[in-house]
Amino acid sequence: MLSLARRSTIRKPSRSLQSSDVDTVITVEDNVVKARGVEFPNIWLRDNCQCSSCVHDATRQRLIDIFEIPQDISIRSSEADAGGINIEWSDGHKSYYKNKFLHNATGTFRERAIVRQGLRSPSLWGSEIKDNPPTVSYEDVIHEDSHGLYTLLSNIRTHGFTFIDSVPHTTSTPTESLLTRISFIRPTHYGAFYDFTADLSSKDMAYTSVSLPAHTDTTYFSDPAGLQAFHLLSHTHGTGGASLLVDGFKAARDLYDEDPDAYRILSTVNVHAHASGNDGISIQPYRGFPVLSHDAATGFRVQVRWNTADRAAIELPVSETGAWYSAARKFDAVLKRQQNEYWEQLTPGRVLLFDNWRVLHGRSAFTGKRRICGAYVNRDDWVSRWKMARWGQEEVLGRLAAG
Amino acid sequence: MLSLARRSTIRKPSRSLQSSDVDTVITVEDNVVKARGVEFPNIWLRDNCQCSSCVHDATRQRLIDIFEIPQDISIRSSEADAGGINIEWSDGHKSYYKNKFLHNATGTFRERAIVRQGLRSPSLWGSEIKDNPPTVSYEDVIHEDSHGLYTLLSNIRTHGFTFIDSVPHTTSTPTESLLTRISFIRPTHYGAFYDFTADLSSKDMAYTSVSLPAHTDTTYFSDPAGLQAFHLLSHTHGTGGASLLVDGFKAARDLYDEDPDAYRILSTVNVHAHASGNDGISIQPYRGFPVLSHDAATGFRVQVRWNTADRAAIELPVSETGAWYSAARKFDAVLKRQQNEYWEQLTPGRVLLFDNWRVLHGRSAFTGKRRICGAYVNRDDWVSRWKMARWGQEEVLGRLAAG
Repeated sequence: MLSLARRSTIRKPSRSLQSSDVDTVITVEDNVVKARGVEFPNIWLRDNCQCSSCVHDATRQRLIDIFEIPQDISIRSSEADAGGINIEWSDGHKSYYKNKFLHNATGTFRERAIVRQGLRSPSLWGSEIKDNPPTVSYEDVIHEDSHGLYTLLSNIRTHGFTFIDSVPHTTSTPTESLLTRISFIRPTHYGAFYDFTADLSSKDMAYTSVSLPAHTDTTYFSDPAGLQAFHLLSHTHGTGGASLLVDGFKAARDLYDEDPDAYRILSTVNVHAHASGNDGISIQPYRGFPVLSHDAATGFRVQVRWNTADRAAIELPVSETGAWYSAARKFDAVLKRQQNEYWEQLTPGRVLLFDNWRVLHGRSAFTGKRRICGAYVNRDDWVSRWKMARWGQEEVLGRLAAG
Repeated sequence: MLSLARRSTIRKPSRSLQSSDVDTVITVEDNVVKARGVEFPNIWLRDNCQCSSCVHDATRQRLIDIFEIPQDISIRSSEADAGGINIEWSDGHKSYYKNKFLHNATGTFRERAIVRQGLRSPSLWGSEIKDNPPTVSYEDVIHEDSHGLYTLLSNIRTHGFTFIDSVPHTTSTPTESLLTRISFIRPTHYGAFYDFTADLSSKDMAYTSVSLPAHTDTTYFSDPAGLQAFHLLSHTHGTGGASLLVDGFKAARDLYDEDPDAYRILSTVNVHAHASGNDGISIQPYRGFPVLSHDAATGFRVQVRWNTADRAAIELPVSETGAWYSAARKFDAVLKRQQNEYWEQLTPGRVLLFDNWRVLHGRSAFTGKRRICGAYVNRDDWVSRWKMARWGQEEVLGRLAAG
């Protein structure tokens, strides 16, 4: 696939992780490199040579085909200096590995995942967040110094959502500009950026005036929408339509504390979903996914999928589905606890932006006409933007082989 | 999310699956419904009531919240007729379940997956496919009767690729129109539909004139591109640039037959990938994925991820990565066998369209200027289109609760 360089860097000072600052002693014994007591296979070292003939300077793409290099490649000679180690290989190629590079590669799975996944300890919240919800101003976000954009991404990574205040609301264009500061808009079979007034011509329940319980969107995709934005541009001739947010990671933790068996069932039983509202379309993910997903390497929670309306089959023999319903009922009760529900009336000028992999949303019924605009952004794209902002290009790209 | 109905149905006669035609005897004993010896939990039945107050007629979205209904819901009375069974519930609600509906829900995981995943037995191929590659004409594909589009999708589902012949090539517009017959184009951080002439301003190896070994694209996404299209619009002042296709499912099967241990390693060890060519961007999937992915419920192969250039870390302690490299070397050797390589010179007017989850692509080096256009389509969107074409709306939507 071709790549057109796009000038859209967020400039923030790179902050090194603590573990990277540790002095690491590299040794070579019996043709084997060791760091922190860990032996490096020669094939791994050769595959991860960082010289400019082995890795493209700009793209960090690997330029060599490791399978064209002898499997028994060995070290002809080596020499350490203060910052790393020089190695001459049996095929004549010369490599240099920085101490920090080898140190990072010996990290635990958790250490290795932090930068790769853009991890940050989530700040779990309940209804009390109403007193001080994470907020950033539109002016700061669109300012070219990117400080406001950093705050926006940090809010989402920490709390799962943020408000953006003082957004112009005569048209929906400023809202779209705000979102494209993060990434391009993700189109779906429904369209891309939308600006609509609720009426009754709907083919999806979200497009009506009824109340919607807390749910996540697009459980019917292999890769559900990462971020979702709502901007209430106007509400005339009626009332109601308060927005509901629930921290899915907080609810999951509550369930884990109260009923580990139910948690286990919701973490292991795959569930299917579908979107079949459009003629000729019935979208389902390529596999079933559990309600609660965790990273295999670290055990961290990575995703909540919860949508009763779009739920299809439960991946169990039908006679055994009772256990899933019991577990799901418990999670549902946690989600509906008053202390877990954060209700907020959206107002023109205030954009709500949230992580659809973590935070559930809903709304109360309303009367009158509501004009809403909004869009989705992919998880991969916003997390990429976040981690580059958080750790900087050098740190992120320097950890690709280790992460 | 809102939904705007789009008129884009493919009309094909619905073909029932054989298993659906079987007569199924439904019984009710001790407050439990049974079909084919399988007991249905009442909560499952109530959750999957198909009446129009429980399921939206057009979207098939569930309108009830099962967790608002008593967990111990029971059957007050029941009465079977020739086509199904009437049930009156303890809360007064009345449901009707067709025999076929209950029959389908008792199927094996494999039976339940066929329509949901749009499964078809793949026809595995090697270099001999050159004699008779799957092909359909542009005129047939854009014809509104959709017969050609059905052939196109069927070719891809069966063989993993298809050619489309006689595509106008003065501009790239007809190629784009061809693809949007299937679905909207998937944009990435690189752009969406592209039309470019290879020169040296690249930030990705695909955008140069060097040879590229067989690989899959976008291993750096959580959800890799489903379909990829190439159309060579012109090639002037030079030669070379033959296209290479390899059936990844065939190669995987060969590896399985020859070295089950290597196959197991490539099916279980997660590997990371990245796209870091653009300023401010370093995209990685939300988790590592194995080279060979299988459906958890059925065991079917669903995806091959193979890209040496974009590969990042291997999700093993670094000291244990040697086993992965050995297994990967074996797969690499299978992929590079002459009898598995299908080489074809693309020509203006002939579009290559392939399943990037199954078929690897590459090319030989070339001289001169090549003008190429192409794009990605999401897996979820093209498989949706395929299964609706294959089984028809009624069959697909009727199986959502069972699948």
